[in-house]
Amino acid sequence: MGPKRNKSRRADDYVHGYSEREDRRLRDQSQTLADLLHHDSLYPTGSRVLEAGCGVGAQTVLLARHSPGAQFMSVDVSPVSVQAAEAAVRRAGCMNVTFRTADIFQLPFPRGSFDHVFVCFVLEHLQEPARALQCLRAVLKPGGTLTVIEGDHGSTLFHPRSDAAWRTIQCLIDLQAEAGGDALIGRRLFPLLRGAGFREVTVSPRFVYVDDSRPAWVEGFTRNTYIAMVEGVRPRALAAGLIDRRDWAKGIGDLKASAGAGGTFCYTFFKAVAVKNRPKWSASRRPAPAGE
Amino acid sequence: MGPKRNKSRRADDYVHGYSEREDRRLRDQSQTLADLLHHDSLYPTGSRVLEAGCGVGAQTVLLARHSPGAQFMSVDVSPVSVQAAEAAVRRAGCMNVTFRTADIFQLPFPRGSFDHVFVCFVLEHLQEPARALQCLRAVLKPGGTLTVIEGDHGSTLFHPRSDAAWRTIQCLIDLQAEAGGDALIGRRLFPLLRGAGFREVTVSPRFVYVDDSRPAWVEGFTRNTYIAMVEGVRPRALAAGLIDRRDWAKGIGDLKASAGAGGTFCYTFFKAVAVKNRPKWSASRRPAPAGE
Repeated sequence: MGPKRNKSRRADDYVHGYSEREDRRLRDQSQTLADLLHHDSLYPTGSRVLEAGCGVGAQTVLLARHSPGAQFMSVDVSPVSVQAAEAAVRRAGCMNVTFRTADIFQLPFPRGSFDHVFVCFVLEHLQEPARALQCLRAVLKPGGTLTVIEGDHGSTLFHPRSDAAWRTIQCLIDLQAEAGGDALIGRRLFPLLRGAGFREVTVSPRFVYVDDSRPAWVEGFTRNTYIAMVEGVRPRALAAGLIDRRDWAKGIGDLKASAGAGGTFCYTFFKAVAVKNRPKWSASRRPAPAGE
Repeated sequence: MGPKRNKSRRADDYVHGYSEREDRRLRDQSQTLADLLHHDSLYPTGSRVLEAGCGVGAQTVLLARHSPGAQFMSVDVSPVSVQAAEAAVRRAGCMNVTFRTADIFQLPFPRGSFDHVFVCFVLEHLQEPARALQCLRAVLKPGGTLTVIEGDHGSTLFHPRSDAAWRTIQCLIDLQAEAGGDALIGRRLFPLLRGAGFREVTVSPRFVYVDDSRPAWVEGFTRNTYIAMVEGVRPRALAAGLIDRRDWAKGIGDLKASAGAGGTFCYTFFKAVAVKNRPKWSASRRPAPAGE
């Protein structure tokens, strides 16, 4: 592009606005959703990390790359997913991940096997998220940390407002509830983790805000992540009689307007980090009594 | 407290957990909502800033203190509010604020009088927020900035979930709509500002997350700011027949549970900064053609 750039130098200078927009687009792309959620999930060299519910490995590759010195054990209840995750990790050239097919409620590891546990977009699908957390706590070493990331569809905000659009989102929430899950779980990570016996629970919400000054997010998040996810439940929503074809079409059309000119879109993810307490004798920070 | 502290030194050490909680409480208090919203509203020495809709001066004191070298002109349509704001600013010892009773739609200032304009929790109450922005733009110098802060009650998320609690919030939204305002305006600041002719519109949401590990926020925000605000519309909501006494009591009770043990509460403010374009001849960054 060098010579062309030189040739049209005056035009380039003239369209300064374009260049600013392009800069922002590139910044957006590098600061993707994955960065927003995972940039602070870093594990020390030599630590053993359990990724519970790895699915097809979308997060696994990120985790393994960010913490090349840590050893990951990634498990999923579906052998097909584990196979896909393993292939993804091999393609990415990561050598620090071991895979295993395993149920989160019957983990094939001794108590205290891991320094850290990581769970992302898993609890929302479980009928017993509290019991799952207890199972994960059991395989964690005392003093180890648990990281949980979940969404909360109730946090969805968009402009222009539309009840029809909201009804399509409600279909997703209802279907997940029918399957025993909770698409609104993000807001209750704090009591869930406390209730499962974790300490030092710290929740840091990750707020996604998108308007048409951020075209990479409009495309990558609003359209291709969120709206695509809602559209994915259309057959089940229609089959379950939660909505009819016309209302669905109207709702999705309205939702797409939030990704159009002048539209805005917001969503909040909740990330929590918590600690499994050390036994009392080692947790005490009392100085030794004088004389001892 | 020194001697007492020394006397009970062993007890102090033993209750280390208390001291950590106390530290967090103090941190919370210094990092209040005002900080979250206003820490980045700073104006250079010598600049002239219009605060439009100062109310009783809650923000005025913060602005004047943060930018002691800037000259503020704070106006409100209500002479009673202006008087209260003036008293608050005098009590705070700020000397860089002038007050005037004025209507945002009929500002008594020549075009281009100000380097910056600041508007906080005002547009939500106006029937014509777009026209208000145009009036503010007129008194702004070319190249000057406008800062707008608004809430969006649709962003309210809480645990435990409760339809009854949501109905009390809906009363607030409905009453504000009846009065011609929009309690859900935050999400649409971007198109509003663009539509009023502003450029470089940048929206930065301020997400408030509260759980019982942050007692100062539970008290200061969830209870004394948000729930108190909802409770304030009870007489009007009942009088308008939007809800009956029993449902109101149940709803407020449920809302208060979000400020109790294991509860969580979230709310999003939207802050936007935008620029009034310079006239074309000065905005152009084209280098002078060779030979000139």
